[in-house]
This record gives sequence, structure tokens and C-alpha cells, in this order.
Amino acid sequence: MNQQHVQLSAGVVELRLRHTFTIAHGSSDLRYNVMVRLVTDGLVAHGVAAPNPRYGETPESAMAALESLRLSLTGNLDAIDPLIRRMHGALAGEYAAKAALDMALHDRWAKTLNQPLYRLFGADPARMPPTSMTIGIDQPTVVRKKVRDAQFFKVLKVKLGGENDREMIETIRSVSQQPIRVDANEGWHQRDAALREIEWLAQQGIELIEQPMPADRHADMRWLKRRSPLPLIADEAFALPADLPRLAEGYHGVNIKLAKCGGMLAARQAIAMARALDMQTMLGCMVESSVGIAAAAHLAPLVDYVDLDGNLLVANDPFRGHPVRDGVIALSDDPGLGIQPSHLPNP
Amino acid sequence: MNQQHVQLSAGVVELRLRHTFTIAHGSSDLRYNVMVRLVTDGLVAHGVAAPNPRYGETPESAMAALESLRLSLTGNLDAIDPLIRRMHGALAGEYAAKAALDMALHDRWAKTLNQPLYRLFGADPARMPPTSMTIGIDQPTVVRKKVRDAQFFKVLKVKLGGENDREMIETIRSVSQQPIRVDANEGWHQRDAALREIEWLAQQGIELIEQPMPADRHADMRWLKRRSPLPLIADEAFALPADLPRLAEGYHGVNIKLAKCGGMLAARQAIAMARALDMQTMLGCMVESSVGIAAAAHLAPLVDYVDLDGNLLVANDPFRGHPVRDGVIALSDDPGLGIQPSHLPNP
Repeated sequence: MNQQHVQLSAGVVELRLRHTFTIAHGSSDLRYNVMVRLVTDGLVAHGVAAPNPRYGETPESAMAALESLRLSLTGNLDAIDPLIRRMHGALAGEYAAKAALDMALHDRWAKTLNQPLYRLFGADPARMPPTSMTIGIDQPTVVRKKVRDAQFFKVLKVKLGGENDREMIETIRSVSQQPIRVDANEGWHQRDAALREIEWLAQQGIELIEQPMPADRHADMRWLKRRSPLPLIADEAFALPADLPRLAEGYHGVNIKLAKCGGMLAARQAIAMARALDMQTMLGCMVESSVGIAAAAHLAPLVDYVDLDGNLLVANDPFRGHPVRDGVIALSDDPGLGIQPSHLPNP
Repeated sequence: MNQQHVQLSAGVVELRLRHTFTIAHGSSDLRYNVMVRLVTDGLVAHGVAAPNPRYGETPESAMAALESLRLSLTGNLDAIDPLIRRMHGALAGEYAAKAALDMALHDRWAKTLNQPLYRLFGADPARMPPTSMTIGIDQPTVVRKKVRDAQFFKVLKVKLGGENDREMIETIRSVSQQPIRVDANEGWHQRDAALREIEWLAQQGIELIEQPMPADRHADMRWLKRRSPLPLIADEAFALPADLPRLAEGYHGVNIKLAKCGGMLAARQAIAMARALDMQTMLGCMVESSVGIAAAAHLAPLVDYVDLDGNLLVANDPFRGHPVRDGVIALSDDPGLGIQPSHLPNP
């Protein structure tokens, strides 16, 4: 594959959220993704970057990173393992941009082999865990309506860590007995108080707790892990696979996001390593186009927990991905990522 | 895929070595492998078990394990990830038998996708590192002849850890300047003496040292790693991926063998984890049929060092694998493992 046959283009899209989104860190109703399009000998492949402000990433920095990363697209493009590793080595940080290019390279690879990606991972789509649906913090009447709208999901996810955590859970429980995952988003700062909260939550049919305390509280998390009646899942505390041996001391599992670790190859590395360390695995997402959700969905039959609703929160997704049926993402057998332009006008 | 369409058969073969083989632990000129044949809907796939006496494995125990492991061959055989994980969970130990079944399942999987396995791993056969050729300990005249016979290999490997280590190296250097890898097979028991030996070896064009001290000497290895001028590679000290975070403290890299970790899926897990821990990776082997060497060879473009000469030491291999050209294994594009019966009469 010669350099001159490779075309890479990228552009920023403004995603409008269906509902204003409130978590412990703040509220907003817009997100920006960078859409990536890779064309090689007439074959079109896609990826998406959801830049993470936590790591200083912006749509502009992702665009600049892609301009630099395109220089790694040389040699044998079918050999995605060395290709993507070289791409990771070409630039520090900018994991969202790397994830976008990684997705497009995987999409292209699987299309040249005429297979859906999950099959090339040896995954079984029949073993797809149900995805959770996030219920944003809001007034009780609004929360009750959102929960009723989400009744066909098998699991709910709630972002806590604010003032009214118990009221939020009680409001949901007033209309639904669905299992609930709690994401505290680092919201609890005292380990004793966090433990009391987790013990209360354990009695409310809660399945797990994501990131109960700030990411840097390793000693507190080791203390909490020994006492928690619910599995504790690292989210903000986890970025790269090399973090996992230390995280295993303070968490039962880890939430892996393509945008954070830099794509599907890195996510598979994290899944392999977490399994070896006897950690539970979750696949999470950003608010992002179906392109990124599809990429994670092809890996999702390999993990324990799936939290891939980021595209469902978007009103103007430029792509259509895999449908959610009875709360489970139904992977199609189309080659590659299996996504299609949505025929919505690009915003 | 229904259970009734799956046929698994296995049998012990006696492999005769071309040369009597001497290492720190002793000498012998016979090895026993268990050949595995998996037939599903007319498609024939192969695997091989090289039982490891160090872990109490024998051809008989491997045969018994396979009889038990065949019960895991249910459900979707294309979904090799959950299938092989279930197989690993069905039985403790018996990694050689698990590796044999893992190879046959990979061979079948890639044949159904009509692809060579390396392509499904996203590997680049053009990036295959040269394989080393082992020169057994022997009289100087014999060693000189063996080295001359091995001149087209780009790297030699020598098993030291005995009385005449320096004489052996000097004998090789009297006829060849090829890079040499030293495998001490746990032969050095004093860390100061080991360091002096390594410092001497570093001046003789030695590339790396495998397992300088006994596998359980973690504190000594941490001491030695900080001082060694050559990369130290864990061999006997490494069995399973979960060992790697601790091994990273005492070794620069790890020798991964399919027969020891239980197959290609586990080896890929170990490679992923070693990379995340910034460890160097080597793929090694037992004395075994080309079936097992081919399985490792499809993963070999993903690692730093290749030591896959185990089939070249065998006089009566029942299979033909990938040829070694100019010291490098040349992977064919045949689907699956890419091996063929050798048309030798089975012993």
C-alpha cells in the first residue's frame, strides 16, 4: 500500500444533546467530535475522536494531532498491530485523535477481510452484555419520566456525587426496580462517608459503583475495596494499561474507553491485562457519534459490563450504528464497524 | 455448530532428536508430543501438546486432560475468545494440552475465514525477527561443527549454567561472530558471580541472558537487573500473564511459550501485558512438532526476539511447517496454521 493511495480527512461536528446533561462536574447540552474519514483505493473507513477536556484535548488539538499522525500511515496498512503501535509512538497524548485513526484503520482492515470486526476478535455477539442507559440528574418529575422512557433498558446508570444522591435513587426506585449502576465521578471525598453511602446503595439494588473517590486517592481506595459490599470500578483513575496492576489494589474492575486509551488495539490490551489481573471489565464511552459506539460495541461481547449509550444521547448523529434491542446492542454482520451515514444534514 | 459435528482425536508421538541435547538439567535424545486433530464439518485442524515435566505434565496426563477438555467444545466455535477462556476454566494446570486445543481451534477459525492466522492478528510477516538456533553443549570439535552448520542463522543460542561456560563461548567465537543469546536455565546461584559472568559475556557479543538465576530468586533478580549490562529475560520464572507485573521488577523481558501459558490466546494476552509494562518480548518453544512452531510463528512478528527452532531439532516431525530462509521463518499465506502432514510414516 503506497502513501499516495491513502487519503485522510477530518472535520469537527457539533453534537446536540437530546437532554441537558448534569454530572458532578457541571452541565452542558453540546459536545464536539472530530469525524475521520480514511480512503484507500476506493475503500472508505471511518473513525471519531471525542476530545477529553480533562487531558487538555480539544477539537482543535485533535485536528492538529491527526494532521501529524497521518504521517505514520505508511507501509503495510493490513498489519494494524505494528501500524497502530507506530502511530501511538509518533506523538504524546491526544488519545482521542489516536482512537479515531485506530477505529478507521480497524474499519478498513475488517472491510478488506470482508468481516465484521467482532468476528476478527473471536467474539460472540450472542454474549453481548446489556448496555446501561444514563439517567441525568434532574427534578424528580423529569427523572421519573426519563426512567419510564428507559424501561426497555436492562440496566440504568446514574451519575451521583452531588447533594441529592439518596433522593435521586429513591425517585428512580419509585417507578422502577431495574438494576442501577452508580457513577460517583470522584464525588465522595471522605472514605468513611463513601463507605456509608455504598452500604446504603447496596440495599437499593445497585450493581456497582464507578469512581467513588478522586482518582489520586489510592490509599483510601485500598481501604474502601476491602470493605465495599459492591464492586468498585475505576474510571477517572484509569487511563492506560500500565496503570492496571496498581489499580487492581483499590478497585474490583475498570471502565475502558476507546477515546481515553487511544483506540481498539489499546482497549484490547487493557482487557487482556485486566483479565490477567482478575479485574472485572467495563466498556464505557464519551458522548459521541455511533462510529465510536460501534467500535466499542465490537469489543463489548468480551467484557463484563457495557455502558455504551453515548450515541443515544445525541440528537444529530451523522452516522447510524447498531440498534439497541431489548437493552442489548445488536451487532450487524456488515463488514468493518458496520456503520452508515445517517443522511441527516451535517450540522 | 452442534456438538455432534465436532470430532477430536489425539495420539502420542515419539520425536527423535537429530542430536543428543544437553542443558543444565540433563541430557536426552527423545521427546514425546501429543498430536491433536479437530474435525468439524469436514474441516481438519491441528494442534500439538509438548508436556512439561517441570509442571508434572506427561503425555498421559495431557491425553487425559484432552479427554476432559473436549467437553468445553460446545456453542459457537467461531467465537474463540470465550470458547478458549471456558476451556481454560474447565481444568487446572495441563497447559500443554490446553495449548494443543487452543492451536487447533485457532487453525479451524482461520481456515473458516480463509486467512493465515498472522493476518487475523494484524501482524506483518515482513517484520519477523530472525530466529535463533540452539547450539547444544558438547565437545569443542562437535560445537565448532554445529556452529558452522548453523551459519545461515542470524542468531545463535547457547544453554550455559554449567562448568565450562566460558570455554563454550570461546569455542563458538573461534569460528563465528554471530550474535549469541545465552540461556543460563537457572544455572547461576550467587548473584555476584552471576553479575561477573554477565559482564564477561557482555564483552563477547552476547545479545541477552535468559533466566540467569533460579526462578524463585526475586530479590536477587531485582539487584541484578539494576546492574546487568545485558537484557535479562525471564523463562522458568514466567508461567502466566498474572506473573508479569512482579517479573517486570527483576527482568527486562519475558520468554513466552505456548506450551507453558496454554496457547495462542494466552500468549497474546502475555504479549499485550508485557508491552504495557514496557517489557521486551520473546517467543520460545519446546522441542516440538512444526504444528506448535507454526502457531508461535504466526505471533512472532509481534515480538522482539524469536527462538523457534524446536522443530529443527526433530528428525521425524509428522508435519511440515514454514521454512526458515536466511535465518527468518517465512510465513506462508495458506489459511490457518499453514502446516501440512510431512508424509513421513508416523513413528
